[in-house]
Amino acid sequence: MSHLTIALDIMGGDHGPHIILPAAKKALQEFPHLKIILCGPQTIMSEWFDTLTNTLQTRIVLSDCPQSVDMDEAPTQAFRQKKQSSMRRMLDLVNEDHADACVSAGNTGALLTMAFYVLKTLPGIYRPALVSKVPTADNGRVYLLDLGANVNCDSEVLFQYAVMGSVLAEQIDEISKPKVALLNVGVEDIKGNDQVKHTASMLLDTEAINYIGFVEGNDIFGQKADVIVTDGFVGNIALKSWEGLASFVIEEVKKASQQNWWRKVLAAIALPLLKVIYTKMKPDQYNGASLIGLRGIVVKSHGNASSEAFLYAIRQAVREAEMQVPNKIKDKIEAVLMERH
Amino acid sequence: MSHLTIALDIMGGDHGPHIILPAAKKALQEFPHLKIILCGPQTIMSEWFDTLTNTLQTRIVLSDCPQSVDMDEAPTQAFRQKKQSSMRRMLDLVNEDHADACVSAGNTGALLTMAFYVLKTLPGIYRPALVSKVPTADNGRVYLLDLGANVNCDSEVLFQYAVMGSVLAEQIDEISKPKVALLNVGVEDIKGNDQVKHTASMLLDTEAINYIGFVEGNDIFGQKADVIVTDGFVGNIALKSWEGLASFVIEEVKKASQQNWWRKVLAAIALPLLKVIYTKMKPDQYNGASLIGLRGIVVKSHGNASSEAFLYAIRQAVREAEMQVPNKIKDKIEAVLMERH
Repeated sequence: MSHLTIALDIMGGDHGPHIILPAAKKALQEFPHLKIILCGPQTIMSEWFDTLTNTLQTRIVLSDCPQSVDMDEAPTQAFRQKKQSSMRRMLDLVNEDHADACVSAGNTGALLTMAFYVLKTLPGIYRPALVSKVPTADNGRVYLLDLGANVNCDSEVLFQYAVMGSVLAEQIDEISKPKVALLNVGVEDIKGNDQVKHTASMLLDTEAINYIGFVEGNDIFGQKADVIVTDGFVGNIALKSWEGLASFVIEEVKKASQQNWWRKVLAAIALPLLKVIYTKMKPDQYNGASLIGLRGIVVKSHGNASSEAFLYAIRQAVREAEMQVPNKIKDKIEAVLMERH
Repeated sequence: MSHLTIALDIMGGDHGPHIILPAAKKALQEFPHLKIILCGPQTIMSEWFDTLTNTLQTRIVLSDCPQSVDMDEAPTQAFRQKKQSSMRRMLDLVNEDHADACVSAGNTGALLTMAFYVLKTLPGIYRPALVSKVPTADNGRVYLLDLGANVNCDSEVLFQYAVMGSVLAEQIDEISKPKVALLNVGVEDIKGNDQVKHTASMLLDTEAINYIGFVEGNDIFGQKADVIVTDGFVGNIALKSWEGLASFVIEEVKKASQQNWWRKVLAAIALPLLKVIYTKMKPDQYNGASLIGLRGIVVKSHGNASSEAFLYAIRQAVREAEMQVPNKIKDKIEAVLMERH
């Protein structure tokens, strides 16, 4: 297999290099054909670099970046003033073909804005989308998009999201004719807002997409579809509400366990099961999210990701690079547009 | 205290009279000043009525309704063809001032449509909203609206929802100057879609509402506000997604418990705690939802509600009738409109 190069923003996320550098090392051990370009301050990177074996060192390039983007920095300000940041550098490396993909756990808004202006969208794609896999019954997975890249999605944008999601499921998960659904407030044709209804009629007319109709909020985890499409406003609020609910439930159980000694024992015993719940309820924390529809591959790891979760995000970037996802999206959109004209 | 009369649709919901008639009896025992008009087929009601004491019988009126609305019936069809249904009758009774409020666990879409056309909206209110209380940290509660009455909400409708939610928190929960927030994808002013941004500027200009700004999906359960306002499309999908997540998590725990005997023991012991979680994750199942903004009081119990949950919905109807919520909403909207002109 030919070499692949992934650029990493080591300064992003709540834990920065502490979790990202160990994840980088594990990724190099896992993928023998992988090279990594680390973007961050030279001093931090050198110290760590010196602890590695020569063999690993030859597969790493250090790209010194004096700036970094703060987690609460305004996106447009980051784009204008942080041209020497680790986040910007990794995007530049992808844009200039020095890297096949990049991964950051940094400020989501800044990453969306920078990636949009640096990499640009693919021909035929109006707006990029943030997509993540959500766990479903029977150990299944469903791609949910958009998770907040665009809060004003018209039906053309939703339609393009359906096409992009379908390509991801086909290429990354090798699902033939992935089932694509639209998230709605009911399953009947007359239900929903104007955007959703119009998108449905566009998808029904498109043979290249296996559109199966509307699904409701309670169907998301029910393995009804391989891809579920929604507006970034809805997707963002739903995803974040699951996180809020997870934290709330954990707190409630902790509180319940403090009521008496018997409940304390119960809670201690129940903890292994509750950990299962916690992971399931914060899907993006574990899986990361991909920013798709751009001319390059960008994977967004959760800001609070562990080293293991960041490694998962690197794996996602490797897989997308191997399958050349942007090219496949470009081809599919062209085919669909041909069908429509 | 003066007498109150509540009309009940005994045919609504998954379990109909089996859970509704016992709830009615308990409500009569709980509220000595309450009268109940039962709407449903005479045969079912008479048989149950005969088992009651004379004292209770004098406080019940049976209103024979030969029709009932099916759970999956199209709303417009139900409105046109089910004029003799138990759901329609209870609304007619409220409209004709024979009842102070009504409760149904039936088909939500049909109830919304019928209530809208039979009762009409209050002056100054464009559209009714479906609102429910969601549990938050430290045993708090937040009113979340709209949960699906309107999927195309412009900023004027969202603004009216803020006013209505504020009245509910003030009247029902006796909160002085309830904190009202808008659900958004971020807390900064520049975040969000056009409707939300415009609603924010309208609320900032309105002294009669204690508007505290944007909250995100993960803040819903965090006790940041007393009222959270969102579009019915977003609210419906978020609420239903919590139900889906609850069912999913319960199934996952069951599956995990089947892996070996030790896990089976763990799961059995953890069950009391998991029941806490289940209830928290399906707030509307327990609390019911109110349809507000109409000239009469309509409470929607969850279709799958237990007798206890249906009793909760009756209590909600009693409380709204005692506090004359529609009048209070009318007054507040008038005051706000005066302020704006």
